[in-house]
Amino acid sequence: MDTDRIVLKDNERIDDLQRNGYGIIQNPERFCFGMDAVLLSGFARAKSGDRVLDLGTGTGIIPILMAAKTDAAHLTGLEIQEESADMAGRSVMLNGLEDKIDIVTGDIKEAVGLFDKSSFDVITSNPPYMIDSHGLTNPHSEKAIARHEIMCNLEDVISAAAALLKPGGNFFMVHRPFRLAEILTGLRAHKLEPKRMRLVYPFIDKEPNMVLIEANRGGKAALTVEKPLIVYKEPGKYTDEIYDTYGY
Amino acid sequence: MDTDRIVLKDNERIDDLQRNGYGIIQNPERFCFGMDAVLLSGFARAKSGDRVLDLGTGTGIIPILMAAKTDAAHLTGLEIQEESADMAGRSVMLNGLEDKIDIVTGDIKEAVGLFDKSSFDVITSNPPYMIDSHGLTNPHSEKAIARHEIMCNLEDVISAAAALLKPGGNFFMVHRPFRLAEILTGLRAHKLEPKRMRLVYPFIDKEPNMVLIEANRGGKAALTVEKPLIVYKEPGKYTDEIYDTYGY
Repeated sequence: MDTDRIVLKDNERIDDLQRNGYGIIQNPERFCFGMDAVLLSGFARAKSGDRVLDLGTGTGIIPILMAAKTDAAHLTGLEIQEESADMAGRSVMLNGLEDKIDIVTGDIKEAVGLFDKSSFDVITSNPPYMIDSHGLTNPHSEKAIARHEIMCNLEDVISAAAALLKPGGNFFMVHRPFRLAEILTGLRAHKLEPKRMRLVYPFIDKEPNMVLIEANRGGKAALTVEKPLIVYKEPGKYTDEIYDTYGY
Repeated sequence: MDTDRIVLKDNERIDDLQRNGYGIIQNPERFCFGMDAVLLSGFARAKSGDRVLDLGTGTGIIPILMAAKTDAAHLTGLEIQEESADMAGRSVMLNGLEDKIDIVTGDIKEAVGLFDKSSFDVITSNPPYMIDSHGLTNPHSEKAIARHEIMCNLEDVISAAAALLKPGGNFFMVHRPFRLAEILTGLRAHKLEPKRMRLVYPFIDKEPNMVLIEANRGGKAALTVEKPLIVYKEPGKYTDEIYDTYGY
Protein backbone atom coordinates (compact mmCIF):
# COMPACT_ATOMS: atom_id res chain seq x y z
CA MET A 1 0.00 0.00 0.00
CA ASP A 2 1.25 3.44 -0.93
CA THR A 3 -0.41 5.48 1.80
CA ASP A 4 1.66 8.61 1.09
CA ARG A 5 -0.26 9.45 -2.11
CA ILE A 6 -3.66 9.08 -0.47
CA VAL A 7 -5.68 11.74 1.26
CA LEU A 8 -8.10 10.37 3.86
CA LYS A 9 -11.26 12.38 4.56
CA ASP A 10 -13.11 12.70 7.88
CA ASN A 11 -13.92 9.34 9.52
CA GLU A 12 -12.17 7.37 6.78
CA ARG A 13 -9.75 4.60 7.61
CA ILE A 14 -7.68 2.07 5.68
CA ASP A 15 -8.49 -1.62 6.25
CA ASP A 16 -6.02 -4.37 5.33
CA LEU A 17 -7.52 -6.90 2.88
CA GLN A 18 -5.07 -9.72 3.73
CA ARG A 19 -4.37 -10.17 0.02
CA ASN A 20 -1.30 -8.94 -1.92
CA GLY A 21 -0.82 -6.28 0.75
CA TYR A 22 -3.92 -4.53 -0.59
CA GLY A 23 -6.02 -2.20 1.51
CA ILE A 24 -9.35 -0.41 1.16
CA ILE A 25 -10.55 2.99 2.28
CA GLN A 26 -13.76 2.77 4.28
CA ASN A 27 -15.89 5.10 6.33
CA PRO A 28 -17.80 3.27 9.07
CA GLU A 29 -20.22 6.22 9.25
CA ARG A 30 -21.26 5.46 5.70
CA PHE A 31 -20.90 1.81 4.74
CA CYS A 32 -18.36 -0.97 5.18
CA PHE A 33 -18.18 -4.04 2.97
CA GLY A 34 -19.63 -7.24 4.33
CA MET A 35 -18.92 -10.94 4.12
CA ASP A 36 -21.13 -11.14 1.01
CA ALA A 37 -18.58 -9.17 -1.05
CA VAL A 38 -15.73 -11.36 0.20
CA LEU A 39 -17.62 -14.59 -0.53
CA LEU A 40 -18.57 -13.36 -4.00
CA SER A 41 -14.92 -12.61 -4.80
CA GLY A 42 -14.12 -16.19 -3.72
CA PHE A 43 -16.96 -17.70 -5.74
CA ALA A 44 -16.41 -15.69 -8.95
CA ARG A 45 -13.93 -16.89 -11.55
CA ALA A 46 -12.01 -14.92 -14.14
CA LYS A 47 -9.46 -16.29 -16.58
CA SER A 48 -6.21 -14.77 -17.71
CA GLY A 49 -6.94 -11.87 -20.04
CA ASP A 50 -10.58 -11.45 -19.02
CA ARG A 51 -12.29 -8.06 -18.94
CA VAL A 52 -14.40 -7.81 -15.79
CA LEU A 53 -17.17 -5.38 -14.78
CA ASP A 54 -18.62 -4.97 -11.26
CA LEU A 55 -22.11 -3.45 -11.21
CA GLY A 56 -22.68 -1.26 -8.14
CA THR A 57 -19.12 -1.49 -6.88
CA GLY A 58 -19.50 0.74 -3.80
CA THR A 59 -16.02 1.39 -2.43
CA GLY A 60 -14.51 -1.02 -4.98
CA ILE A 61 -14.08 -4.05 -2.75
CA ILE A 62 -14.94 -6.63 -5.40
CA PRO A 63 -12.66 -5.40 -8.22
CA ILE A 64 -9.80 -4.99 -5.74
CA LEU A 65 -10.24 -8.51 -4.34
CA MET A 66 -10.69 -9.92 -7.87
CA ALA A 67 -7.48 -8.14 -8.95
CA ALA A 68 -5.73 -9.95 -6.11
CA LYS A 69 -7.32 -13.36 -6.63
CA THR A 70 -7.55 -13.75 -10.44
CA ASP A 71 -5.49 -13.14 -13.58
CA ALA A 72 -8.15 -10.86 -15.09
CA ALA A 73 -6.58 -8.38 -17.50
CA HIS A 74 -8.77 -5.42 -16.59
CA LEU A 75 -11.55 -4.63 -14.12
CA THR A 76 -14.12 -1.84 -14.11
CA GLY A 77 -16.28 -0.83 -11.17
CA LEU A 78 -19.51 1.10 -11.87
CA GLU A 79 -20.93 3.09 -8.95
CA ILE A 80 -23.74 5.66 -8.88
CA GLN A 81 -22.81 7.35 -5.60
CA GLU A 82 -20.07 9.93 -6.17
CA GLU A 83 -18.63 9.76 -2.68
CA SER A 84 -18.31 5.95 -2.82
CA ALA A 85 -16.81 6.09 -6.30
CA ASP A 86 -14.30 8.68 -5.06
CA MET A 87 -13.29 6.39 -2.20
CA ALA A 88 -13.01 3.45 -4.62
CA GLY A 89 -10.77 5.53 -6.92
CA ARG A 90 -8.48 6.44 -4.03
CA SER A 91 -8.34 2.77 -2.95
CA VAL A 92 -7.25 1.85 -6.49
CA MET A 93 -4.44 4.40 -6.20
CA LEU A 94 -3.58 3.21 -2.71
CA ASN A 95 -2.92 -0.25 -4.16
CA GLY A 96 -1.15 1.00 -7.31
CA LEU A 97 -3.85 -0.58 -9.49
CA GLU A 98 -4.57 2.43 -11.77
CA ASP A 99 -3.54 0.45 -14.88
CA LYS A 100 -5.77 -2.47 -13.99
CA ILE A 101 -8.95 -1.04 -12.41
CA ASP A 102 -11.17 1.79 -13.67
CA ILE A 103 -13.84 3.25 -11.42
CA VAL A 104 -16.71 4.81 -13.38
CA THR A 105 -19.36 6.99 -11.76
CA GLY A 106 -22.71 6.17 -13.33
CA ASP A 107 -26.08 4.47 -13.20
CA ILE A 108 -26.58 0.72 -13.75
CA LYS A 109 -29.78 1.61 -15.63
CA GLU A 110 -27.63 3.52 -18.15
CA ALA A 111 -24.76 1.04 -18.22
CA VAL A 112 -25.51 0.05 -21.80
CA GLY A 113 -24.75 3.62 -22.91
CA LEU A 114 -21.57 3.79 -20.80
CA PHE A 115 -19.99 0.55 -22.07
CA ASP A 116 -20.05 -1.38 -25.35
CA LYS A 117 -22.62 -4.15 -25.58
CA SER A 118 -21.26 -7.71 -25.35
CA SER A 119 -17.86 -6.43 -24.26
CA PHE A 120 -17.16 -8.14 -20.89
CA ASP A 121 -16.06 -11.71 -20.18
CA VAL A 122 -17.17 -11.57 -16.58
CA ILE A 123 -19.66 -9.41 -14.68
CA THR A 124 -20.01 -9.42 -10.89
CA SER A 125 -22.58 -7.78 -8.65
CA ASN A 126 -23.45 -7.50 -4.97
CA PRO A 127 -26.66 -5.51 -5.51
CA PRO A 128 -29.16 -4.13 -2.98
CA TYR A 129 -31.15 -7.04 -1.54
CA MET A 130 -34.25 -5.46 -0.04
CA ILE A 131 -37.29 -4.80 -2.20
CA ASP A 132 -38.41 -1.38 -1.04
CA SER A 133 -37.42 1.47 1.20
CA HIS A 134 -40.49 1.24 3.39
CA GLY A 135 -39.87 2.39 6.93
CA LEU A 136 -36.37 3.72 6.27
CA THR A 137 -35.62 6.88 8.24
CA ASN A 138 -33.15 8.05 5.61
CA PRO A 139 -33.68 6.51 2.16
CA HIS A 140 -30.95 8.74 0.71
CA SER A 141 -28.20 7.45 2.97
CA GLU A 142 -25.43 5.41 1.41
CA LYS A 143 -26.35 2.43 3.56
CA ALA A 144 -29.98 2.56 2.41
CA ILE A 145 -28.97 2.85 -1.26
CA ALA A 146 -26.53 -0.05 -0.93
CA ARG A 147 -29.08 -2.30 0.77
CA HIS A 148 -32.47 -1.37 -0.68
CA GLU A 149 -33.68 -1.25 -4.27
CA ILE A 150 -33.86 2.53 -4.33
CA MET A 151 -31.58 3.45 -7.27
CA CYS A 152 -31.82 0.10 -9.11
CA ASN A 153 -33.59 -3.22 -8.75
CA LEU A 154 -32.84 -6.86 -9.54
CA GLU A 155 -34.25 -6.57 -13.06
CA ASP A 156 -32.01 -3.54 -13.81
CA VAL A 157 -28.90 -5.42 -12.67
CA ILE A 158 -29.74 -8.59 -14.62
CA SER A 159 -30.67 -6.76 -17.81
CA ALA A 160 -27.46 -4.69 -17.69
CA ALA A 161 -25.40 -7.86 -17.18
CA ALA A 162 -27.17 -9.64 -20.05
CA ALA A 163 -26.53 -6.74 -22.43
CA LEU A 164 -22.88 -6.16 -21.49
CA LEU A 165 -21.63 -9.76 -21.28
CA LYS A 166 -20.08 -11.39 -24.32
CA PRO A 167 -21.94 -14.50 -25.53
CA GLY A 168 -20.61 -17.29 -23.32
CA GLY A 169 -19.56 -14.81 -20.62
CA ASN A 170 -20.36 -15.38 -16.95
CA PHE A 171 -22.33 -13.34 -14.44
CA PHE A 172 -21.64 -13.83 -10.71
CA MET A 173 -24.01 -12.44 -8.10
CA VAL A 174 -24.53 -12.68 -4.36
CA HIS A 175 -28.05 -12.15 -3.06
CA ARG A 176 -30.54 -13.29 -0.42
CA PRO A 177 -32.24 -16.70 -0.65
CA PHE A 178 -35.73 -15.20 -0.24
CA ARG A 179 -35.29 -13.66 -3.71
CA LEU A 180 -34.07 -16.92 -5.32
CA ALA A 181 -37.18 -17.66 -7.38
CA GLU A 182 -37.14 -14.13 -8.82
CA ILE A 183 -33.39 -14.36 -9.44
CA LEU A 184 -33.52 -17.63 -11.39
CA THR A 185 -36.61 -16.53 -13.33
CA GLY A 186 -35.10 -13.13 -14.12
CA LEU A 187 -31.77 -14.58 -15.25
CA ARG A 188 -33.45 -17.08 -17.59
CA ALA A 189 -35.75 -14.40 -19.00
CA HIS A 190 -32.56 -12.59 -20.11
CA LYS A 191 -30.88 -15.75 -21.50
CA LEU A 192 -28.47 -15.89 -18.59
CA GLU A 193 -28.67 -19.57 -17.69
CA PRO A 194 -28.00 -20.37 -14.01
CA LYS A 195 -25.11 -22.88 -14.00
CA ARG A 196 -23.71 -22.91 -10.46
CA MET A 197 -25.23 -22.03 -7.10
CA ARG A 198 -24.06 -22.20 -3.52
CA LEU A 199 -26.05 -21.46 -0.40
CA VAL A 200 -24.35 -19.87 2.58
CA TYR A 201 -25.62 -21.17 5.92
CA PRO A 202 -24.47 -19.27 9.04
CA PHE A 203 -24.60 -22.54 10.99
CA ILE A 204 -25.17 -26.10 9.80
CA ASP A 205 -28.63 -26.15 11.43
CA LYS A 206 -29.84 -22.72 10.29
CA GLU A 207 -31.54 -21.31 7.22
CA PRO A 208 -29.14 -19.90 4.60
CA ASN A 209 -28.73 -16.12 4.58
CA MET A 210 -26.88 -15.70 1.27
CA VAL A 211 -26.88 -17.33 -2.14
CA LEU A 212 -24.05 -17.22 -4.67
CA ILE A 213 -25.06 -17.65 -8.31
CA GLU A 214 -23.15 -18.09 -11.57
CA ALA A 215 -25.07 -17.69 -14.83
CA ASN A 216 -23.79 -18.16 -18.36
CA ARG A 217 -24.94 -16.02 -21.27
CA GLY A 218 -26.61 -18.42 -23.72
CA GLY A 219 -25.78 -21.56 -21.71
CA LYS A 220 -27.80 -24.80 -21.61
CA ALA A 221 -30.15 -25.58 -18.71
CA ALA A 222 -28.34 -27.60 -16.00
CA LEU A 223 -27.54 -26.18 -12.59
CA THR A 224 -24.87 -27.48 -10.25
CA VAL A 225 -25.81 -26.79 -6.65
CA GLU A 226 -22.59 -26.99 -4.67
CA LYS A 227 -21.95 -28.27 -1.16
CA PRO A 228 -23.16 -25.96 1.60
CA LEU A 229 -20.93 -23.08 2.62
CA ILE A 230 -21.08 -23.03 6.42
CA VAL A 231 -19.83 -19.82 8.04
CA TYR A 232 -19.45 -20.64 11.74
CA LYS A 233 -18.07 -23.81 13.33
CA GLU A 234 -19.30 -22.48 16.67
CA PRO A 235 -20.44 -19.01 17.76
CA GLY A 236 -17.61 -16.56 17.05
CA LYS A 237 -15.42 -19.15 15.31
CA TYR A 238 -15.36 -19.33 11.52
CA THR A 239 -15.02 -22.58 9.58
CA ASP A 240 -11.67 -23.17 7.85
CA GLU A 241 -13.21 -22.34 4.47
CA ILE A 242 -14.23 -18.87 5.66
CA TYR A 243 -10.78 -18.21 7.14
CA ASP A 244 -9.26 -19.29 3.80
CA THR A 245 -11.59 -17.02 1.81
CA TYR A 246 -10.66 -14.05 3.98
CA GLY A 247 -6.98 -14.96 3.59
CA TYR A 248 -6.16 -15.19 7.30
CA MET B 1 -52.57 -54.65 7.72
CA ASP B 2 -55.26 -57.00 6.50
CA THR B 3 -53.12 -59.38 4.47
CA ASP B 4 -55.89 -62.02 4.15
CA ARG B 5 -57.84 -59.98 1.58
CA ILE B 6 -54.80 -59.34 -0.60
CA VAL B 7 -53.51 -61.44 -3.46
CA LEU B 8 -49.79 -61.04 -4.09
CA LYS B 9 -48.54 -61.64 -7.63
CA ASP B 10 -45.19 -63.09 -8.68
CA ASN B 11 -42.17 -61.41 -7.06
CA GLU B 12 -44.37 -59.07 -5.01
CA ARG B 13 -43.78 -58.56 -1.31
CA ILE B 14 -45.30 -56.44 1.46
CA ASP B 15 -42.99 -53.88 3.10
CA ASP B 16 -43.80 -52.36 6.50
CA LEU B 17 -44.02 -48.54 6.36
CA GLN B 18 -43.40 -48.03 10.11
CA ARG B 19 -46.47 -45.77 10.27
CA ASN B 20 -49.95 -46.70 11.62
CA GLY B 21 -49.14 -50.35 10.90
CA TYR B 22 -49.40 -49.57 7.19
CA GLY B 23 -47.66 -51.64 4.53
CA ILE B 24 -47.05 -51.37 0.79
CA ILE B 25 -46.94 -53.97 -1.95
CA GLN B 26 -43.75 -53.74 -3.99
CA ASN B 27 -42.05 -55.74 -6.67
CA PRO B 28 -38.27 -55.33 -6.61
CA GLU B 29 -38.13 -56.58 -10.22
CA ARG B 30 -40.14 -53.52 -11.23
CA PHE B 31 -39.62 -50.53 -8.97
CA CYS B 32 -39.38 -49.83 -5.24
CA PHE B 33 -40.00 -46.43 -3.70
CA GLY B 34 -36.97 -44.41 -2.71
CA MET B 35 -36.00 -41.95 -0.02
CA ASP B 36 -37.32 -39.10 -2.20
CA ALA B 37 -40.94 -40.26 -1.71
CA VAL B 38 -40.44 -40.58 2.05
CA LEU B 39 -38.82 -37.14 2.32
CA LEU B 40 -41.60 -35.58 0.22
CA SER B 41 -44.25 -37.06 2.52
CA GLY B 42 -42.37 -35.51 5.46
CA PHE B 43 -42.01 -32.12 3.74
CA ALA B 44 -45.59 -31.85 2.41
CA ARG B 45 -48.34 -30.44 4.61
CA ALA B 46 -52.08 -31.05 4.49
CA LYS B 47 -54.66 -29.64 6.87
CA SER B 48 -57.70 -31.32 8.33
CA GLY B 49 -60.33 -31.70 5.63
CA ASP B 50 -57.96 -31.18 2.69
CA ARG B 51 -58.42 -32.93 -0.63
CA VAL B 52 -55.04 -34.15 -1.88
CA LEU B 53 -53.87 -35.37 -5.30
CA ASP B 54 -50.61 -37.18 -6.06
CA LEU B 55 -49.49 -36.90 -9.70
CA GLY B 56 -47.66 -40.04 -10.88
CA THR B 57 -48.28 -42.02 -7.71
CA GLY B 58 -46.57 -45.27 -8.79
CA THR B 59 -47.42 -47.90 -6.18
CA GLY B 60 -49.18 -45.28 -4.03
CA ILE B 61 -46.43 -44.65 -1.50
CA ILE B 62 -47.07 -40.92 -1.13
CA PRO B 63 -50.88 -41.01 -0.57
CA ILE B 64 -50.45 -43.89 1.90
CA LEU B 65 -47.75 -42.06 3.87
CA MET B 66 -49.75 -38.80 3.71
CA ALA B 67 -52.83 -40.66 5.00
CA ALA B 68 -50.71 -41.78 7.96
CA LYS B 69 -49.01 -38.44 8.62
CA THR B 70 -51.74 -35.83 7.99
CA ASP B 71 -55.42 -35.18 8.68
CA ALA B 72 -56.26 -34.86 4.97
CA ALA B 73 -59.89 -35.81 4.31
CA HIS B 74 -59.28 -37.56 1.01
CA LEU B 75 -56.35 -38.50 -1.20
CA THR B 76 -56.21 -39.46 -4.87
CA GLY B 77 -53.26 -41.07 -6.65
CA LEU B 78 -53.04 -40.74 -10.44
CA GLU B 79 -50.86 -43.31 -12.22
CA ILE B 80 -50.48 -44.07 -15.93
CA GLN B 81 -49.02 -47.57 -15.60
CA GLU B 82 -51.80 -50.12 -15.06
CA GLU B 83 -49.68 -52.63 -13.21
CA SER B 84 -48.44 -49.99 -10.73
CA ALA B 85 -51.96 -48.60 -10.27
CA ASP B 86 -53.19 -52.14 -9.60
CA MET B 87 -50.52 -52.63 -6.92
CA ALA B 88 -51.40 -49.23 -5.42
CA GLY B 89 -55.08 -50.20 -5.30
CA ARG B 90 -54.27 -53.46 -3.51
CA SER B 91 -52.02 -51.58 -1.03
CA VAL B 92 -54.96 -49.25 -0.29
CA MET B 93 -57.09 -52.33 0.50
CA LEU B 94 -54.27 -53.90 2.51
CA ASN B 95 -54.36 -50.85 4.80
CA GLY B 96 -58.16 -50.54 4.88
CA LEU B 97 -57.97 -47.11 3.29
CA GLU B 98 -60.60 -47.59 0.54
CA ASP B 99 -62.75 -44.76 1.97
CA LYS B 100 -59.84 -42.36 2.09
CA ILE B 101 -57.65 -43.06 -0.96
CA ASP B 102 -58.68 -43.42 -4.61
CA ILE B 103 -56.23 -44.74 -7.17
CA VAL B 104 -57.01 -43.55 -10.70
CA THR B 105 -55.34 -45.01 -13.79
CA GLY B 106 -54.68 -42.19 -16.21
CA ASP B 107 -52.29 -39.75 -17.84
CA ILE B 108 -51.00 -36.58 -16.14
CA LYS B 109 -51.32 -34.84 -19.52
CA GLU B 110 -55.08 -35.54 -19.41
CA ALA B 111 -55.52 -34.89 -15.69
CA VAL B 112 -57.58 -31.77 -16.34
CA GLY B 113 -60.22 -33.94 -18.04
CA LEU B 114 -60.15 -36.54 -15.26
CA PHE B 115 -60.62 -34.13 -12.34
CA ASP B 116 -62.40 -30.82 -11.85
CA LYS B 117 -60.28 -27.72 -12.27
CA SER B 118 -59.33 -25.88 -9.07
CA SER B 119 -60.59 -28.77 -6.93
CA PHE B 120 -57.60 -29.83 -4.78
CA ASP B 121 -56.16 -28.15 -1.69
CA VAL B 122 -52.84 -29.94 -1.98
CA ILE B 123 -51.02 -31.61 -4.87
CA THR B 124 -47.88 -33.71 -4.46
CA SER B 125 -45.54 -35.17 -7.06
CA ASN B 126 -42.33 -37.19 -7.24
CA PRO B 127 -42.03 -37.03 -11.04
CA PRO B 128 -39.40 -38.50 -13.36
CA TYR B 129 -36.17 -36.53 -12.95
CA MET B 130 -34.15 -37.32 -16.05
CA ILE B 131 -34.63 -35.31 -19.23
CA ASP B 132 -34.58 -37.98 -21.91
CA SER B 133 -34.42 -41.70 -22.42
CA HIS B 134 -31.14 -41.62 -24.30
CA GLY B 135 -29.10 -44.76 -23.83
CA LEU B 136 -31.80 -46.70 -21.99
CA THR B 137 -31.85 -50.39 -22.90
CA ASN B 138 -35.58 -50.61 -22.13
CA PRO B 139 -37.42 -47.28 -22.27
CA HIS B 140 -40.74 -49.06 -21.69
CA SER B 141 -39.77 -50.59 -18.35
CA GLU B 142 -41.51 -49.30 -15.26
CA LYS B 143 -38.19 -48.11 -13.83
CA ALA B 144 -37.42 -46.11 -16.98
CA ILE B 145 -40.89 -44.53 -17.01
CA ALA B 146 -40.65 -43.64 -13.33
CA ARG B 147 -37.21 -42.06 -13.70
CA HIS B 148 -37.11 -40.55 -17.18
CA GLU B 149 -39.39 -38.01 -18.86
CA ILE B 150 -40.86 -40.58 -21.24
CA MET B 151 -44.61 -40.36 -20.50
CA CYS B 152 -44.62 -36.83 -19.06
CA ASN B 153 -42.17 -34.02 -18.43
CA LEU B 154 -41.71 -31.28 -15.84
CA GLU B 155 -43.93 -28.86 -17.76
CA ASP B 156 -46.78 -31.42 -17.90
CA VAL B 157 -46.63 -31.97 -14.14
CA ILE B 158 -46.51 -28.27 -13.29
CA SER B 159 -49.29 -27.31 -15.67
CA ALA B 160 -51.55 -30.10 -14.34
CA ALA B 161 -50.87 -28.97 -10.75
CA ALA B 162 -51.58 -25.33 -11.62
CA ALA B 163 -54.92 -26.22 -13.25
CA LEU B 164 -56.14 -28.62 -10.55
CA LEU B 165 -55.15 -26.70 -7.41
CA LYS B 166 -57.63 -24.35 -5.78
CA PRO B 167 -56.47 -20.72 -5.61
CA GLY B 168 -54.26 -20.58 -2.52
CA GLY B 169 -53.62 -24.33 -2.68
CA ASN B 170 -50.13 -25.77 -2.32
CA PHE B 171 -48.01 -27.93 -4.62
CA PHE B 172 -45.22 -30.07 -3.13
CA MET B 173 -42.59 -31.65 -5.33
CA VAL B 174 -39.30 -33.49 -4.93
CA HIS B 175 -36.80 -33.25 -7.79
CA ARG B 176 -33.11 -33.04 -8.59
CA PRO B 177 -31.14 -29.83 -7.97
CA PHE B 178 -29.75 -29.76 -11.52
CA ARG B 179 -33.29 -28.95 -12.71
CA LEU B 180 -33.84 -26.20 -10.12
CA ALA B 181 -33.68 -23.23 -12.48
CA GLU B 182 -36.24 -24.88 -14.80
CA ILE B 183 -38.42 -25.83 -11.82
CA LEU B 184 -38.61 -22.33 -10.34
CA THR B 185 -39.09 -20.74 -13.76
CA GLY B 186 -41.78 -23.26 -14.73
CA LEU B 187 -43.67 -22.87 -11.46
CA ARG B 188 -43.73 -19.08 -11.74
CA ALA B 189 -44.81 -19.24 -15.38
CA HIS B 190 -47.91 -21.10 -14.14
CA LYS B 191 -48.55 -18.72 -11.20
CA LEU B 192 -47.35 -21.28 -8.70
CA GLU B 193 -45.10 -19.14 -6.52
CA PRO B 194 -42.21 -21.02 -4.86
CA LYS B 195 -42.59 -20.38 -1.11
CA ARG B 196 -40.44 -23.00 0.65
CA MET B 197 -37.43 -25.01 -0.45
CA ARG B 198 -35.12 -27.47 1.21
CA LEU B 199 -32.01 -29.05 -0.24
CA VAL B 200 -31.10 -32.61 0.72
CA TYR B 201 -27.36 -33.16 1.09
CA PRO B 202 -26.21 -36.80 1.43
CA PHE B 203 -23.32 -35.59 3.60
CA ILE B 204 -22.57 -32.16 5.04
CA ASP B 205 -19.61 -31.71 2.65
CA LYS B 206 -21.29 -32.97 -0.54
CA GLU B 207 -23.46 -31.49 -3.28
CA PRO B 208 -27.22 -31.89 -2.69
CA ASN B 209 -28.92 -34.70 -4.60
CA MET B 210 -32.56 -33.77 -3.98
CA VAL B 211 -34.60 -30.60 -3.64
CA LEU B 212 -37.97 -30.30 -1.92
CA ILE B 213 -40.19 -27.44 -3.13
CA GLU B 214 -43.49 -25.97 -1.95
CA ALA B 215 -45.30 -23.57 -4.28
CA ASN B 216 -48.51 -21.66 -3.62
CA ARG B 217 -51.09 -20.98 -6.31
CA GLY B 218 -51.28 -17.20 -6.65
CA GLY B 219 -48.84 -16.50 -3.80
CA LYS B 220 -46.54 -13.50 -3.45
CA ALA B 221 -42.84 -13.72 -4.31
CA ALA B 222 -40.76 -14.62 -1.22
CA LEU B 223 -39.02 -17.95 -0.82
CA THR B 224 -37.94 -19.45 2.49
CA VAL B 225 -34.93 -21.69 1.99
CA GLU B 226 -34.83 -24.00 4.99
CA LYS B 227 -31.88 -25.43 6.89
CA PRO B 228 -30.03 -28.21 5.06
CA LEU B 229 -31.43 -31.72 5.30
CA ILE B 230 -28.38 -33.93 5.85
CA VAL B 231 -28.97 -37.65 5.23
CA TYR B 232 -25.92 -39.38 6.67
CA LYS B 233 -24.07 -38.64 9.90
CA GLU B 234 -21.40 -41.07 8.78
CA PRO B 235 -21.37 -43.72 6.04
CA GLY B 236 -24.23 -46.14 6.70
CA LYS B 237 -25.61 -44.14 9.62
CA TYR B 238 -28.56 -41.79 9.09
CA THR B 239 -28.96 -38.49 10.91
CA ASP B 240 -31.68 -38.37 13.59
CA GLU B 241 -33.95 -36.36 11.28
CA ILE B 242 -33.89 -39.11 8.65
CA TYR B 243 -34.64 -41.80 11.25
CA ASP B 244 -37.56 -39.66 12.47
CA THR B 245 -38.90 -39.20 8.94
CA TYR B 246 -38.81 -42.93 8.33
CA GLY B 247 -40.50 -43.49 11.68
CA TYR B 248 -37.89 -45.84 13.16
